[in-house]
Amino acid sequence: MRPALQLIAAATLVAPIAAQVPASHTLMPVPSSVQLTAAQLRVDTGFSVSTVRVSDGRLTRAIGRAVSRLEMRAGVPLFRRIGSAGSASLVVDVASPGFAVPDLAEDESYQLNVTGSGATLTAATVVGAIRGLETFLQLQGGDAKGVFIQGATIQDTPRFRWRGLLLDVSRHFEPTDVIKRLLDGMAMVKLNVFHWHLSDDQGFRVESRAYPRLHQLGSDSMFYTQEQIREIVSYATDRGIRVMPEFDVPGHSSAWFPGYPELTVGAGPFAIARTWGTFEPTMDPTRESTYQFLDKFIGEIAGLFPDKYWHIGGDEVDPKQWKGTAAIQSYMKSHGLANEVALHTAFNARLFAIVQKHGKTPVGWDEIFQPNLPTSAVIQSWRGTAVLATSAKAGFRGILSAPYYIDHMKAAADFYLPDPIPANTDLTPEQQALVLGGEACMWGEYVVSETLASRIWPRLAAIAERFWSPQNVVDVADMYRRLDVTSRRLSEVGLRHEEHVARNVRRLAGDSTALFETLLDYVRPRDFGGSGSNQFFPHTRLMDAALPDPRASWDITGRARRAVAGDAVAATQLRTDLTRMGAVQARLTAVRDFIPAAGEGVQVAAAMSNLSRVGLDALGFMARRTTADAAWSTYADSMLAALAPRRIGQWTLVPTATDAVRILVDAAKGLPPPRN
Amino acid sequence: MRPALQLIAAATLVAPIAAQVPASHTLMPVPSSVQLTAAQLRVDTGFSVSTVRVSDGRLTRAIGRAVSRLEMRAGVPLFRRIGSAGSASLVVDVASPGFAVPDLAEDESYQLNVTGSGATLTAATVVGAIRGLETFLQLQGGDAKGVFIQGATIQDTPRFRWRGLLLDVSRHFEPTDVIKRLLDGMAMVKLNVFHWHLSDDQGFRVESRAYPRLHQLGSDSMFYTQEQIREIVSYATDRGIRVMPEFDVPGHSSAWFPGYPELTVGAGPFAIARTWGTFEPTMDPTRESTYQFLDKFIGEIAGLFPDKYWHIGGDEVDPKQWKGTAAIQSYMKSHGLANEVALHTAFNARLFAIVQKHGKTPVGWDEIFQPNLPTSAVIQSWRGTAVLATSAKAGFRGILSAPYYIDHMKAAADFYLPDPIPANTDLTPEQQALVLGGEACMWGEYVVSETLASRIWPRLAAIAERFWSPQNVVDVADMYRRLDVTSRRLSEVGLRHEEHVARNVRRLAGDSTALFETLLDYVRPRDFGGSGSNQFFPHTRLMDAALPDPRASWDITGRARRAVAGDAVAATQLRTDLTRMGAVQARLTAVRDFIPAAGEGVQVAAAMSNLSRVGLDALGFMARRTTADAAWSTYADSMLAALAPRRIGQWTLVPTATDAVRILVDAAKGLPPPRN
Repeated sequence: MRPALQLIAAATLVAPIAAQVPASHTLMPVPSSVQLTAAQLRVDTGFSVSTVRVSDGRLTRAIGRAVSRLEMRAGVPLFRRIGSAGSASLVVDVASPGFAVPDLAEDESYQLNVTGSGATLTAATVVGAIRGLETFLQLQGGDAKGVFIQGATIQDTPRFRWRGLLLDVSRHFEPTDVIKRLLDGMAMVKLNVFHWHLSDDQGFRVESRAYPRLHQLGSDSMFYTQEQIREIVSYATDRGIRVMPEFDVPGHSSAWFPGYPELTVGAGPFAIARTWGTFEPTMDPTRESTYQFLDKFIGEIAGLFPDKYWHIGGDEVDPKQWKGTAAIQSYMKSHGLANEVALHTAFNARLFAIVQKHGKTPVGWDEIFQPNLPTSAVIQSWRGTAVLATSAKAGFRGILSAPYYIDHMKAAADFYLPDPIPANTDLTPEQQALVLGGEACMWGEYVVSETLASRIWPRLAAIAERFWSPQNVVDVADMYRRLDVTSRRLSEVGLRHEEHVARNVRRLAGDSTALFETLLDYVRPRDFGGSGSNQFFPHTRLMDAALPDPRASWDITGRARRAVAGDAVAATQLRTDLTRMGAVQARLTAVRDFIPAAGEGVQVAAAMSNLSRVGLDALGFMARRTTADAAWSTYADSMLAALAPRRIGQWTLVPTATDAVRILVDAAKGLPPPRN
Repeated sequence: MRPALQLIAAATLVAPIAAQVPASHTLMPVPSSVQLTAAQLRVDTGFSVSTVRVSDGRLTRAIGRAVSRLEMRAGVPLFRRIGSAGSASLVVDVASPGFAVPDLAEDESYQLNVTGSGATLTAATVVGAIRGLETFLQLQGGDAKGVFIQGATIQDTPRFRWRGLLLDVSRHFEPTDVIKRLLDGMAMVKLNVFHWHLSDDQGFRVESRAYPRLHQLGSDSMFYTQEQIREIVSYATDRGIRVMPEFDVPGHSSAWFPGYPELTVGAGPFAIARTWGTFEPTMDPTRESTYQFLDKFIGEIAGLFPDKYWHIGGDEVDPKQWKGTAAIQSYMKSHGLANEVALHTAFNARLFAIVQKHGKTPVGWDEIFQPNLPTSAVIQSWRGTAVLATSAKAGFRGILSAPYYIDHMKAAADFYLPDPIPANTDLTPEQQALVLGGEACMWGEYVVSETLASRIWPRLAAIAERFWSPQNVVDVADMYRRLDVTSRRLSEVGLRHEEHVARNVRRLAGDSTALFETLLDYVRPRDFGGSGSNQFFPHTRLMDAALPDPRASWDITGRARRAVAGDAVAATQLRTDLTRMGAVQARLTAVRDFIPAAGEGVQVAAAMSNLSRVGLDALGFMARRTTADAAWSTYADSMLAALAPRRIGQWTLVPTATDAVRILVDAAKGLPPPRN
């Protein structure tokens, strides 16, 4: 059931002089059931926590982290003793430690009851309590007397069991502290799978003692030691997050071959790829030595990852090398393999046996879904949503990634609405149960450590809500209202997405930081990395400083919808937005002679001026209650058409106001307003 | 000689359409001699560096770091080959590697010549080249074509050989990555001594294998392993920075005694101090075992620090314990020690012999300067400038810290003007040569990792200029002009002072971030940590979010001076400042019921309103060319008097505009304008 309070629009969790039941909450993801009360549990130096029944190290550490975060908000030291006896401000009552290693079968549900005199968090497992502690922290409000936890009764359980983020560390390496902050953020929004894409054409990122030339010659010295892997797995485990490794084979494997050329065919020497796309070098699936290698390698590395799943990749195998190698063609003929897809499937069958021998269940990208695939495999769908339904009908478990490519510069709203099981699904309940959940994918071509948080947060929180919350939680405006608060909260654990624009503009903009910040309020980067992109780019250009979904842009489309529906306040706000946006071009031109970054912005600034002018014109027609003439309409349409992706060539930035202006133009023409 | 271009006021390093000689530079510290030219050395993908003569690992790494930073500004990969042959964009010509361990006797001078076709950096030592590379990076400008290095001819040599920063990691521990960023920043402004205050009453921060209970019981598990110490020393060495350890004895040593109570007197048990001040527990200087302990301890730890100097502390010895212990009093009598100061001096003599036996020269705080002190000791003056002159006359070398306590919340200008050798010194040239330089001191009572950078930067850059640049570089307005650019540049190495206010306000201010940022434009924190301060405070209050010398406050006093001198533009700007400042109170009051942090700001906001009103009144009298009446004058004086430090009690924040308003009030009364 959708909680009724979700329907109430923007208001923050505040308590006026006499405490009342707040009109809305800022919880994200939205719990299964929430009832706020007028009570307030004060948080001051006397705040204490006790545990009932289970009190293991993992729970104690989780409570310690929660108290530290609360303490930072309260500004004074809190009482830190965690005992198992007596009453306390917060009593955590956990029935069982749960799985020692986070497991797909973990019970993550919890119940939370906050009154003015104390709170109780009840969960079947420690991981459930960890989820509930995040909700507890999200209930924090404040007034003149200090901070408090809002009274509430909450029952919560996740909709999907597999709620993940893929991080590609091959295209660009990410240091362990960056990954720890990422895991902290994931835990805050109740994600539970860290899918670690550890090898690809551009880098092999794990220390192998069995095959040391893998990391020695495949990583530019940027790899994780086995000690670091254990450290990350332990960090994730403490937060109830599974760590699933991926070693992508037989394609996307160029970085294996500088060290071990015998795994592929051809003369070599082989090199790490430095650009993007698919590459010819592919593992040779016809040689027994390939399987012996993979057996020994997986045997070694499986010991580092206690998770039950092992991702074998399997995507985008370029058949050119197999087609062009006589020995491989002859092997295919003698083994009755009709084509390269059949050869790939045969390779997978061998690989799956190895993975299973080492105690793991194989996961692969949707290309592996071919006839004869063993149904034990889990299919990760990246090419579309249809394959997930098809494979579920064939009895396969699956996870959806296609709509959640977070490296694409789409708005949070675009990621928010696609559902792993759409409302109109034709799957039976049993088939639906095979859809385990979803994973957002953060591919690494165009991102470096300094820009990573800005490409993931806060948008990932919207996806996390899709995976956790009831299916009917779909109010985009309410999502953005809560995302605004959630984004600031995520900064608390050290994530730096909120600082991204200011930090980069400081380097790019000289004395004109305010101008560049205004420009970046109304643009987003293109999905590609700009002209000549390769692994060595520093990613310090204007497009790297830009956000995929800037806060100032969130409201423009909404305001346009409301304005054409007759909302005068929205129209006034929109006029301010458009005027501010339109003023950037002249200011940017004025500094172009001494700020190099201005050059990257002039094209989009000109487009912003055009959009501003057309949008203001359209608001003018609407205000005068006249319909636009044909000449103006033609001009407005052509201006919008000029901003189509295929028309803007190598621009690295695009304006975010095109949808809003399209709505205004249509209204000015007298067309009916768009449906939601 | 003071470079003439220092006299030219605010303008940035820009190149209008036809390249001209820029009117000013943004170098900090100002070199001994600078001549800018109209030439521009372009920085693009073809940029290269080569070395002549010396090409050791330290130089190669320093060049690599410089190229990386330049690359981030250029936004494209630069050519990274560092060869020893042929021409390159930048030729680095170093005569000798210099000392393997940075040394007080190091020649840090360099010459830099930049033309349109290439640059040459010449230095006697690698450290000199490291200093010159920073200047090279500070010459970077930009235009529509991209980035360039401004043409220049520079000769540079430091005024003082000892240019340091003390960091207290006892009161609050700082992790190694925080220290590395600090060292990066120090290298950017050419500081060369990291004085590491490693033990005090509140924590013992080094792993000792000889006496492991020191760090086990004295550090709350927050200490540096010996491996980490070596890592920091190596990192500093790479940047031409000496690392001098301090273990403060015989006072300020409470944290030694939980592990080794036999070092002091009394029954114990002993505990780490959690509050601030001086504490009674003091080492027992009468027992032979104390010296045996120190001998073994120093023998162990001296091996970790290759620097030739060892700081023994020696400050603020509370004589109470010695006075009250019969055995100590009897020892003093039998050894002819007239009082506790004489006992301390006797202790120092024994300690100095131990330090020297382990190959180090002792350094101590000015209390050690007593009759019979061996002249090999270096005196660090913290109680005033006079002791430095007195000790120099007595033949002691000294370093000045008294005016440079950067944990005090003073403006950069207040630190900038005090000189280790004032212009009116009565020291002979030989005595002046005994003044080695100075050290800023960052004491750690009221600072945590998250706030450290904001308490050090950018103000430390102004102190660094005092230690490096010619004595006649004293133009405060020009210092602030360059400090503004330097502060942004310091962010390049990961220092987060520029992000400090926004980051903290994000947690404190809910939806009212702009309001709180405006408030913090016009206030600074008090020097103490607020009511009840102790080691466990999270330091997340409004006073912790405030900056000691906010940028918006820099100009107020200057504008007031110019306004009373008849500058109409300055008067207009000041009116805007004061109006903005005066509006905060009402806005803050409006959110007080739901933002706890507002409460901490209401008193200072009321004071800001008063200052605003009085300042605007005074500007009104000036604009009307009338003299203020007596009633108004009395009112204005009483309002300013109410803001005297002794009157404002426990306020954690004070307004920064009092000096400016005092100037306006005096002008309105018809008093003559202040001298500079």
